[in-house]
Amino acid sequence: MKNKNITLDEGGGGFKSAEIVKDIRRILKFTGQWKNCGDDAALFNLGSGQKLVFTTDAFIVDPLFFAGGDIGKIAMCGTINDLVVMGAKPIGISLSIVMEEGFPKKDFEEILKSINKISLQTKVPIVTGDTKVTEKGKIDKIEITTAGVGLVKNDGVIKNNGIKNGDYIVASGDLGEHAITLLAKRFNYQTKIKSDCRPLIEELKKTRKYLNACKDPTRGGLAANLVEMAEKSGVKIILDEKTLPYKKETKAVAELLGIDIFSLASEGRFIASVSPKNVDKVLKILQKFNEEAKIIGRAQKNKKENGVYLKTELGSLRKIEMPKGKLIPRIC
Amino acid sequence: MKNKNITLDEGGGGFKSAEIVKDIRRILKFTGQWKNCGDDAALFNLGSGQKLVFTTDAFIVDPLFFAGGDIGKIAMCGTINDLVVMGAKPIGISLSIVMEEGFPKKDFEEILKSINKISLQTKVPIVTGDTKVTEKGKIDKIEITTAGVGLVKNDGVIKNNGIKNGDYIVASGDLGEHAITLLAKRFNYQTKIKSDCRPLIEELKKTRKYLNACKDPTRGGLAANLVEMAEKSGVKIILDEKTLPYKKETKAVAELLGIDIFSLASEGRFIASVSPKNVDKVLKILQKFNEEAKIIGRAQKNKKENGVYLKTELGSLRKIEMPKGKLIPRIC
Repeated sequence: MKNKNITLDEGGGGFKSAEIVKDIRRILKFTGQWKNCGDDAALFNLGSGQKLVFTTDAFIVDPLFFAGGDIGKIAMCGTINDLVVMGAKPIGISLSIVMEEGFPKKDFEEILKSINKISLQTKVPIVTGDTKVTEKGKIDKIEITTAGVGLVKNDGVIKNNGIKNGDYIVASGDLGEHAITLLAKRFNYQTKIKSDCRPLIEELKKTRKYLNACKDPTRGGLAANLVEMAEKSGVKIILDEKTLPYKKETKAVAELLGIDIFSLASEGRFIASVSPKNVDKVLKILQKFNEEAKIIGRAQKNKKENGVYLKTELGSLRKIEMPKGKLIPRIC
Repeated sequence: MKNKNITLDEGGGGFKSAEIVKDIRRILKFTGQWKNCGDDAALFNLGSGQKLVFTTDAFIVDPLFFAGGDIGKIAMCGTINDLVVMGAKPIGISLSIVMEEGFPKKDFEEILKSINKISLQTKVPIVTGDTKVTEKGKIDKIEITTAGVGLVKNDGVIKNNGIKNGDYIVASGDLGEHAITLLAKRFNYQTKIKSDCRPLIEELKKTRKYLNACKDPTRGGLAANLVEMAEKSGVKIILDEKTLPYKKETKAVAELLGIDIFSLASEGRFIASVSPKNVDKVLKILQKFNEEAKIIGRAQKNKKENGVYLKTELGSLRKIEMPKGKLIPRIC
C-alpha cells in the first residue's frame, strides 16, 4: 500500500479501486475451493452439477431518494444483478443496516417498502439480517450492505472474461442514467432523466444461454467494466461513436458537469458479448424489455492491444482508459 | 413503528432491538422457501439431504483494537459463530468494508491481517467483497459487514428453540469478557481481562451432535440470548447463583461501571442445552478447549412461566429480563 492513508479515489471504482482490491487480496490470499473470487460473484461447487454463487455490496448513497429509486432499491438490484450476470438464479439476500440515532422512521419505512417491492417482484426473499444503530454523527444517515446467494448449473456460468474473437458487444439499454440522476439532484440541476435502477432477472433468464461474457456497468461505467472485461478476455473492443449507448440528455448533462460519459454508472443495465450467430436472437429478446438495447461494438483477439477503443465519427481510434482517480461525487 | 426517529436502544440487542426486527419483518414478510429466518442463520434446502446456511452481521466497534482482538477478528468470529451454532460447516465469507477518507493504511492492514489469521486458522476463505471510501466524517473510521454461508446435513441442524424438559444448560466458558475489555478501554480502566473473541468451529464440530439447542451470547449477553432461547422453547430455566459463568474480575468491573452482568456480550462462547445422558460427554470435550466450561442451569417445561430465573444464594428466585433499553456504550 503506497499512500499512508486511504484516499477517496480508492473507493471510486476506477484504477485506484482495482489497486486496493489487489492490496487486499495480497493479504487475503486463501480462497479455498472457491473460483472466480475476482468476478461479480464467487462460485462454489456443490456437486451434482450445481454451483453456489455468492456476492456482496455496500451502499452509502447521497441522496437517499431520487427519481426512479432509493438506497433500498439500489441495494437489492445491485446484489441481484451481480448474481444474474453470472448466469445464476438468486435464491436469497441478507440485509445489514447501520443507521445513526435520529434517522427518521418514515424514511426507514420507505426504504424497507422499496426493498420489499423488489423482493416480491423478483421473488428473491430477504432471509437474514442485522440492524445496528450508532450514536449521532458516527454514520451519515444510513448504510446498507446486502449479500446474495444464488444457484447456477455448471454449464450455465457466465464469466466476465469470456469474450471471443468476432463477438458483438451488446448493451441492454442506454447507460449512465443512474449516475446522471443522482448528480443532477446533488447539483440542483433540473432534468427528466430517471435512474435506470432495476433488477435484470427476467431479461437475463431469457438470454443467458447465448452470452459469452456479461457484466453490469455499475461503478466506473463502461470505462471500468468493459475495459476490465476486454483485458481479462485478451481482446480489443472497438466501439462506434455513432452507436454509443447514451441518451442526448445524458451526454448534455455529463458535458455540463465536466464528467467523462464512459465513467457513468448504471444500476439496471448489462453489457454482454455475443457470437454473431446469436446476436439477432439476443437483441430481439432484449428489445422487448428496452427498445434501446443494441450492438455497441465488436471484439477481436489482439495479442498486443487489449482494451476498449472508440472509433470516432472522423475515423480515428481513441483508447478508453480505466478511470484513474476519484470518479465524480460518490453516487453508488 | 412507534417513535418518529430511530433511537440508540433499537440497535442495542435488547427488547427494543427485538421490536425493530419485528417491525422490519412486518414489511419484509416474504421469506420464500427459507426456514429459520429469525434464528442466528437462515436455512435453505438444497436437496440430497443438505441445507445451505446464510447469515450476516454489521460491525461498528469502538475501540477498533483491544486486548484479544480487533474489529476484523470480531467480524470473522461473529459470522463464523452464527453458522456453527446452527450445526453448520462454514464454507465462505463475504467482506464489505466502508472506510472514511484518511483512515490510516497501517490500521487497515492490521485489520486485514487479523481477518486473514482467522480465515487460515478456521480454513474459511474470504471469497467476495466490496470496498467503499466515504468523504471524511461520513462514517466513524471503518465499518465492516460480513456475511457467511455454510452447509449442514438435514439431521445436523441445531435450532435456538430446541431446549427440552430436563436439559442442562451449558456454557462453553466464562462469559462477558469481550464486553468488559472494550468497556474498560473506553473508560481507561486498567484490567487484565482480554476479549473472549474466537471462532467456535472446533468445539462445535466435536459437540454439535449432542446439543438440543445452541446460541452464542453476543449482543445482550445471557439476558437477551438465553431468555430468547427459553421463550422460543417454552421452558423455564433456573440458573444457580453459585455457578454463574463470570470471572470475579468481570463481576467487579461490571459492578464498578453499574452494568448488569447478564447483559455483557461474549464473542467466543456458546450456550447450549444438553440432555442429561450427554452432558458429561459434552463437558469433557468442552473443558479441553476451556477449563471454565460448565453447567450453569437446568430447564423444565413450564406452560405458565417461560424465561430465565436466577436462584440466589439465599434461595429466592429472580427473573432475568431481556435488556430494556440502550445496553451500555455500543461495543459490538
